[in-house]
Amino acid sequence: MPSTTRERIIESSAELFRRQGYNGTGVKQIVAEASAPFGSLYHFFPGGKEQLGAETIRTSGASYLRLLGEVAGPAPDVATGIEWFFAGAAETLTETGYADACPIATVALEVASTSEPLRQATADVFESWIAAAAAYFAGAGIPGARSRELALAVLALLEGAFVLSRAQRSTEPLVAAGACAVAAVRGALREAG
Amino acid sequence: MPSTTRERIIESSAELFRRQGYNGTGVKQIVAEASAPFGSLYHFFPGGKEQLGAETIRTSGASYLRLLGEVAGPAPDVATGIEWFFAGAAETLTETGYADACPIATVALEVASTSEPLRQATADVFESWIAAAAAYFAGAGIPGARSRELALAVLALLEGAFVLSRAQRSTEPLVAAGACAVAAVRGALREAG
Repeated sequence: MPSTTRERIIESSAELFRRQGYNGTGVKQIVAEASAPFGSLYHFFPGGKEQLGAETIRTSGASYLRLLGEVAGPAPDVATGIEWFFAGAAETLTETGYADACPIATVALEVASTSEPLRQATADVFESWIAAAAAYFAGAGIPGARSRELALAVLALLEGAFVLSRAQRSTEPLVAAGACAVAAVRGALREAG
Repeated sequence: MPSTTRERIIESSAELFRRQGYNGTGVKQIVAEASAPFGSLYHFFPGGKEQLGAETIRTSGASYLRLLGEVAGPAPDVATGIEWFFAGAAETLTETGYADACPIATVALEVASTSEPLRQATADVFESWIAAAAAYFAGAGIPGARSRELALAVLALLEGAFVLSRAQRSTEPLVAAGACAVAAVRGALREAG
């Protein structure tokens, strides 16, 4: 099914925000990339760039959450699932010239102290990922509070490694963070006995 | 000693970049915050905002490195040093309304795919932190390669937790990441025997 103009505007925004951030992306560039007429942006998003930003964050967040299920879901155990997810992230990063990492982190840091609606959108997305990862770990027998703590640490490792790997144009941070995440998961599984 | 105009411009840039990013900060706002005449920016930084950006990244990076030594240095052991550093970061974050976290991460993500001189400046700063943390761990008897891997993981935990804690306006991610970092350090110390 071909995508609608509205969908194309969100896809272009997602791609541009990921690579150059929210403030570095102009609405003209978004509609040009989406091959959409300029007026369509304000037709579909009467709240302008901020409304488009919030919808892009939420849409990208939901896609990335599906990716977690697709990549880690088929793994034989949760530690292997996390290992596969970090390996897949490293592969995507090198394939895209260190451009495609977290779909929302750049915007999250830009807006945290400057736009409450956008900050809230990034917080909601992170919370959905943390809850999903916690449920994934809880499914392997790790107690609830420990699962949440582990989900927060694993997501922090991933997000932080993305910052370092993009800056250094190297997968070394992502590999080290992935190994630490796997060790943390194995430690929590041992505790849970 | 009162700071010079040049120093005040860098200090204002550092503060503004940390809170609202590189692209979200205009040169007019920088000189206004620095109480500096507009022309002084191009007098001290003939390469304009990009040159100022690179110098700000390197200056902020060196300050933050000194902070690692000040906070973690007096700790009785390296695991406690890392625990103190995360605790101090959480305190600063809440005291500043979740604004002051990593001095260069927002810019690092913004410029990674858009400005090679700025990306290089962030990469050099991260490398200086990784090398210092690796030396700190090596000083406690953790072998070289393992020390570097541990430094990368601990810095990833800190940077990722900053992204999550700023977005969620909560220290929960920083607390969980700090606990994971301390566990990783203790694990590496046990391995080193």
